[in-house]
Amino acid sequence: MEQIFHEIKIKTKGQGFYDFTDQTVKWVNDQKINNGILNINILHTSASLIIQENADPDVLYDLKNFFDKLVPMDNKLYKHTTEGKDDMPAHIKSALTNNQITLSIKDNKLMLGTWQGLYLFEHRLEKHTRILSHHLIGN
Amino acid sequence: MEQIFHEIKIKTKGQGFYDFTDQTVKWVNDQKINNGILNINILHTSASLIIQENADPDVLYDLKNFFDKLVPMDNKLYKHTTEGKDDMPAHIKSALTNNQITLSIKDNKLMLGTWQGLYLFEHRLEKHTRILSHHLIGN
Amino acid sequence: MEQIFHEIKIKTKGQGFYDFTDQTVKWVNDQKINNGILNINILHTSASLIIQENADPDVLYDLKNFFDKLVPMDNKLYKHTTEGKDDMPAHIKSALTNNQITLSIKDNKLMLGTWQGLYLFEHRLEKHTRILSHHLIGN
Repeated sequence: MEQIFHEIKIKTKGQGFYDFTDQTVKWVNDQKINNGILNINILHTSASLIIQENADPDVLYDLKNFFDKLVPMDNKLYKHTTEGKDDMPAHIKSALTNNQITLSIKDNKLMLGTWQGLYLFEHRLEKHTRILSHHLIGN
Repeated sequence: MEQIFHEIKIKTKGQGFYDFTDQTVKWVNDQKINNGILNINILHTSASLIIQENADPDVLYDLKNFFDKLVPMDNKLYKHTTEGKDDMPAHIKSALTNNQITLSIKDNKLMLGTWQGLYLFEHRLEKHTRILSHHLIGN
Repeated sequence: MEQIFHEIKIKTKGQGFYDFTDQTVKWVNDQKINNGILNINILHTSASLIIQENADPDVLYDLKNFFDKLVPMDNKLYKHTTEGKDDMPAHIKSALTNNQITLSIKDNKLMLGTWQGLYLFEHRLEKHTRILSHHLIGN
C-alpha cells in the first residue's frame, strides 16, 4: 500500500465554479496506483468543493443563484462583517457544501459518474489562490 | 491490505428516501475484511446520499418536506428547465446533501449509530436506476 | 498498513459549536502513524460535524443564527414533534452539514488549513454525550 500527496492550486477570480476534474484525473492517471482512495481537502473555509453536473452550464448558473439568494450578502444579517460583505456568506455556503470529498480509484481510473464534474466553489469576490490537498492511498 | 469493489443498484419510483442499510451491512459482513474503510459514492447528480434517523418515519417525511419548500419545483426560478421542473431542484438538493459517505468497519461490523440508517435520497419524479459504488479497503 | 480506532466523547450543554480540534490533533500525534487517513464519524443524527473558521467567534455566532432561521423550532412545521420542538430541526440541520469528515495525515500531522477548526455542531437543547468515532489507517 502506497501513499502519495499532491496539491492542486487554483487561482480564482471571484465567485463561481472552477472545474478541476481534468487536473485531478490527469494526476491520478500519472500515478502507479491501480486501486485506492483519493481524499481531496480544501484547506480554506470561504471556498468549498462540490460534485455537480458537467453538461449544461445553466445548472451551475442556477446553483450559484440559489446559494446567493439563500445566503445574501447583507451586512445587517451578520455580526462578522470586518472582512467584507462576502466573507460571512462564504463561511455559510462552505458549511452547506463540502470541505472534502473522498473518491475511489479502480484500474487507475477515478470513479465518477458520466455527468459528474469536480468543482471548486469560490464564495469570495476578490482573487484568491486556493489549495486543494490530494492524498492517494492504494496499490 | 485488500480492496473490494461492489455496486448496489436501486430502482427508484419517484422522490423520497430508499433505505439501503441492510444491503450494505450484509455485503460488508460477507467480505473477509475485519477492519477497514468503506467509501460509498453515488454516481449521479440528481439523487444523493444521507445518513438519517431510522426510527420514526415522520422524520423522513418532514425532511423531504423541508427540502421541497427550500428548493421549489418552479420553472420561473431556474434557467435549466429543459429536463423537467424537477431536474434543477434535484441538482440543488444533491449539493445540499452528500454525493459520498465514508464509513468505518471494525470487527467486520459497519460502524453506525443505533438510530442511523443509510438512505438514497431520490430527487427526480420519474423512475431511475441509481448506482451506489461501494469500495472497501482494509484487512 | 495499520489501523487504530478511538472515541472522543463530548458532553454538550445545549446548542452550539464544540471545538475538538486539539483533542483530535493530540491523539493523532500520539499514534505511530506518519501518513494516513483519519475518518471521523458522529454516531448520532441530531448533532453533526463541521470544519469552520477558528479565528473570529462571530463567525460561529452568525453560522448558528443562519441555521436557526433556516430551520425554525416551530412544531407547526413538522409531524415529528414527540421528541421536543428541537428534535426535527436537529435532524434537518444534521442533513445540511456532515455526519462524517475524512482528513489526511502527513508526517504525523493532521492536514488542516491555518484557519480551519473541527467542531461538533450540537442541535439539541438538552445535555447530551456525543461519540465521535476516530479511525486512523496508515503507516
